[in-house]
Amino acid sequence: MAKTDHFLADTARVDDAAIQALPGSRKIHVEGSRPDIRVPFREISLSPTRTSGADEANPPLLVYDTSGPYTDPDARIDLRRGLPELRRAWIDERDDTEFLDGPTSVYGRRRANDPMLAPLRFELTRTPRRARPGKNVTQLHYARQGIITPEMEFIAIRENQRRQALGSDEVERILGHQHPGQGFGARLPEEITPEFVRREVAEGRAIIPCNINHPESEPMIIGRNFLVKINGNLGNSAVTSSIEDEVDKMTWGIRWGADTIMDLSTGANIHETREWIIRNAPVPIGTVPIYQALEKVGGVAEDLTWEIFRDTLIEQAEQGVDYFTIHAGVLLRYVPLTARRVTGIVSRGGSIMAKWCLYHHQESFLYTHFEEICEICKQYDVAFSLGDGLRPGSVADANDEAQMAELKTLGELTHIAWKHDVQVMIEGPGHVPMHLIKENMDKQLEYCDEAPFYTLGPLVTDIAPGYDHITSGIGAAMIGWYGCAMLCYVTPKEHLGLPNKDDVKTGIITYKIAAHAADLAKGHPAAQRRDNALSKARFEFRWEDQFNLGLDPDTAREYHDETLPKDSAKVAHFCSMCGPKFCSMKISQEVRDYARDKGLDGDREAVMKGMEEQAEKFRREGAELYKEV
Amino acid sequence: MAKTDHFLADTARVDDAAIQALPGSRKIHVEGSRPDIRVPFREISLSPTRTSGADEANPPLLVYDTSGPYTDPDARIDLRRGLPELRRAWIDERDDTEFLDGPTSVYGRRRANDPMLAPLRFELTRTPRRARPGKNVTQLHYARQGIITPEMEFIAIRENQRRQALGSDEVERILGHQHPGQGFGARLPEEITPEFVRREVAEGRAIIPCNINHPESEPMIIGRNFLVKINGNLGNSAVTSSIEDEVDKMTWGIRWGADTIMDLSTGANIHETREWIIRNAPVPIGTVPIYQALEKVGGVAEDLTWEIFRDTLIEQAEQGVDYFTIHAGVLLRYVPLTARRVTGIVSRGGSIMAKWCLYHHQESFLYTHFEEICEICKQYDVAFSLGDGLRPGSVADANDEAQMAELKTLGELTHIAWKHDVQVMIEGPGHVPMHLIKENMDKQLEYCDEAPFYTLGPLVTDIAPGYDHITSGIGAAMIGWYGCAMLCYVTPKEHLGLPNKDDVKTGIITYKIAAHAADLAKGHPAAQRRDNALSKARFEFRWEDQFNLGLDPDTAREYHDETLPKDSAKVAHFCSMCGPKFCSMKISQEVRDYARDKGLDGDREAVMKGMEEQAEKFRREGAELYKEV
Repeated sequence: MAKTDHFLADTARVDDAAIQALPGSRKIHVEGSRPDIRVPFREISLSPTRTSGADEANPPLLVYDTSGPYTDPDARIDLRRGLPELRRAWIDERDDTEFLDGPTSVYGRRRANDPMLAPLRFELTRTPRRARPGKNVTQLHYARQGIITPEMEFIAIRENQRRQALGSDEVERILGHQHPGQGFGARLPEEITPEFVRREVAEGRAIIPCNINHPESEPMIIGRNFLVKINGNLGNSAVTSSIEDEVDKMTWGIRWGADTIMDLSTGANIHETREWIIRNAPVPIGTVPIYQALEKVGGVAEDLTWEIFRDTLIEQAEQGVDYFTIHAGVLLRYVPLTARRVTGIVSRGGSIMAKWCLYHHQESFLYTHFEEICEICKQYDVAFSLGDGLRPGSVADANDEAQMAELKTLGELTHIAWKHDVQVMIEGPGHVPMHLIKENMDKQLEYCDEAPFYTLGPLVTDIAPGYDHITSGIGAAMIGWYGCAMLCYVTPKEHLGLPNKDDVKTGIITYKIAAHAADLAKGHPAAQRRDNALSKARFEFRWEDQFNLGLDPDTAREYHDETLPKDSAKVAHFCSMCGPKFCSMKISQEVRDYARDKGLDGDREAVMKGMEEQAEKFRREGAELYKEV
Repeated sequence: MAKTDHFLADTARVDDAAIQALPGSRKIHVEGSRPDIRVPFREISLSPTRTSGADEANPPLLVYDTSGPYTDPDARIDLRRGLPELRRAWIDERDDTEFLDGPTSVYGRRRANDPMLAPLRFELTRTPRRARPGKNVTQLHYARQGIITPEMEFIAIRENQRRQALGSDEVERILGHQHPGQGFGARLPEEITPEFVRREVAEGRAIIPCNINHPESEPMIIGRNFLVKINGNLGNSAVTSSIEDEVDKMTWGIRWGADTIMDLSTGANIHETREWIIRNAPVPIGTVPIYQALEKVGGVAEDLTWEIFRDTLIEQAEQGVDYFTIHAGVLLRYVPLTARRVTGIVSRGGSIMAKWCLYHHQESFLYTHFEEICEICKQYDVAFSLGDGLRPGSVADANDEAQMAELKTLGELTHIAWKHDVQVMIEGPGHVPMHLIKENMDKQLEYCDEAPFYTLGPLVTDIAPGYDHITSGIGAAMIGWYGCAMLCYVTPKEHLGLPNKDDVKTGIITYKIAAHAADLAKGHPAAQRRDNALSKARFEFRWEDQFNLGLDPDTAREYHDETLPKDSAKVAHFCSMCGPKFCSMKISQEVRDYARDKGLDGDREAVMKGMEEQAEKFRREGAELYKEV
């Protein structure tokens, strides 16, 4: 809390913890068809496998990297200047936008001209852009015209993760193994091509959130036929508030894998906080504009107007917000359907709109002005995240009539957005017991014609406050498997308080687990290689490699140190669980060695083959193994 | 580590943290058909709901309680004396056992007579029992004879959780709501009767682990048609070791909900450690006897003999171990099937037996002497937990031929155990991606004729060392839903080190979440009431009730305190997430109030009804709500 008072633009500096390279890792870039398409990856170096003969090399592993320039030792990070404008040339080349003299929103101009805000303000180094009159600058619009944008090519390279076959045949046999997946209708190609990206966007099955005013962002895609993505929420509130804290949460969140960040600020200096975040964010930023609009009317929901809301949309679009949560599906007639719920309306946006509707006895301006919102979005390429204002806030309320009625309306709104070539994804619940999760996914695909689904959890039980990252991580993994494209994280503080940096990390790692588990189950062709590499390292007691291949090397190393702190333990062929004598991994190796010594000569390949033949013989004869020895 | 040196039986004392009543809770007992059937529950008191009229009472909630006498302020806990022998009279009455003069195992006698161990030794207050010659003392044996034991009646009362309808009609409408479940063949009756318990045991679908030498234990049941149970592992190793630490982990684990505890000690003083644990454990204790047997032969697997193993079984059975993990399904011909795995054999017991088999070129004594093991088990009522020695240790190895071959053999062994009226459950994996989990459950039910399944996780990805409570909690919730009867916890230290007390708690809470989520999804009739009560408290801003109804009130309260530490915040009708103005819960209440003020008079019931009628009208007319106002 105290930090707010001390935050000064002049002295803003990046969180030291956010700019270290991850252990054993370096930033590399894979170049596309032109030199300014440089797709970032994290390359994890691995040590060789020790064998009785020559050491066997383990090829480095490339992993998807959301951390932007922060983990690149070659990058000079200065929060006061913001990140480089990676996409600037691409936007320029399309020649369908114009620079504005400054913000065109009333509120944006007011904040820009308020001298009191000078000490807090991010020093703008750019002026906002907007589509030239009559132009539509959305990726969906380009895709439908058959244009493959640099953003799409960037994404194709990124999603493929350049699955290299760099190891020996035996190493590749292990690393390359992948269980056939169960995709429930997802179509995951062996190789993601730029054309595949274009087609998925054109058909509305995927979105690329990339406002022309956020050229700093590295293109990414949200869709069922790509890697499952995760979102991390941050934002101040009236109770706690600091620009610096929120920027730090952003850089911390992307370090651990947040694919997008939502700024849900509801406290002081929302406009300035957002500017600092966007200018320094290599990932898309989403917001819920109604939160700020409500702030502008002193928190009195019924005082909200379309004009105030519209000005807020333009204000935020010109700052570079990549997607807007819009609760346009909360219709007047759905509100009474929530009356007998255990937890009523739990979405903040949903409850604000419900109150407005009841007070004015009319449908909300979000619904009645939806086409005008589309007109704004297409001038900046802001994607819709159609909010589920009536999502269930308890297991009891899951999949009820209110929820499903709203989802149907979101489906209708999806078609209106598509008519304007505006990109759309759909938000989903909430609290849902496991056996009712799939219905959510199935209905969403049906009602919304395969527009990407973006869910909060769902939490599979209500009874674990303090652990709702876990209750929701279970549901998130499942709905990701069933086809959800992006999972909105939940932190341990859910229902209890605002997350701090530790909570952000815990939430992110939990959701990386859920997303990766979903990729494995769907059978994403790049997914299992990391599991295989880590398990191989584990089996071979390459402790450092095991840590570095994990989602959180620091915590893994720290836990190992707790019982066996000595450096020598990091190369020991046992661990603290069993000690040197009982280690099953060690015994398992001895089993192999023993079989080799007794029964077979030659290299490991031959040993394996020989043992398999023996097993074959066994299956045929039902006899005793190794009787010849 | 230092603690071992200082542990002295004379000064052993219970962990203070283990004997506090949980906040807002008291221990109650529900009496059965006889006064010595007193089934413990935790009763959580709730504060009334404030309304504009008279406050509305919220009935207390009864929850299943695994903590035994520790959380009972009326109990006097003295670790040196052990717990009261709750089941002693029931065992006596059956008149089919005899007291022995002392341990009949060679090793048990040696330890009892070793003066060096006196300072460490639990002062025995009882002599071991054994079945009288020709008698079979298993619950399965009684069940098949049509006998309903006091243990079975105790369990029936315990599983029902005495679902009371104590609130007003409106409160009961909320608390009593339950989604129909999806049971995949599970049959969960509305009321659990003692006869239902008997039948499930008789048919092998459930087990009651209750060694006659562990009369301190409170009867519990493991079966698909009952509440999903969880197990917590503890145990020292050669690297770290302390009797006191392990007893503390046990009392800590049951406080948070462990239904059984496995003592997996492999370090010093295994025998004495186990005695301290069993004498003070109100839950069944399981072990893996081969661990101790291996210790007895200096860690050299090939030196293991049937005689040493047999003596170990008797030693442990006479101490009161309730179930034995026996890896009798690791057959010689299955070992080569593991040769090309990424992670070979990762079960310690499995690798020990594999090594033995290979060395001796013969099937293991666990397999060849299986009927003799049954003979021992039925004299003490030790249940089998048939170990999955070939479980997959990586996602790559999931559901492979080795794993499935062993599972089939476990099915054969199940029938042999049943022939002897010995209770059996089956252990399962391991590391399995989500889409391959159900096959594990389905095959287990098929091969093992519905004997209860007891799985470790499964972990749905390999890439998160440090977070494997979560990777495995996802799989555990799912397999629990599919029909798994007991979930073996995994702590954050899995693969990295031995769990400390914090890790034990984190593992337990994670698995309580998984088990409860499974109960909800299966549609266990007592499951949703707690979710409903907590969500009702949450919606009504009864903060203390929300904490106390959760699985971990302490952590929930602590998290809430971090942002809003003042006591007044515990009654505030908002929280730190949104602050007072933006709270959706508050707005949702205002929506209700507004509707009441404008459109309807009378009590809440009438408001709800009125709003519903309006919605009905709306659906019929497609018109605008509240137009009459």
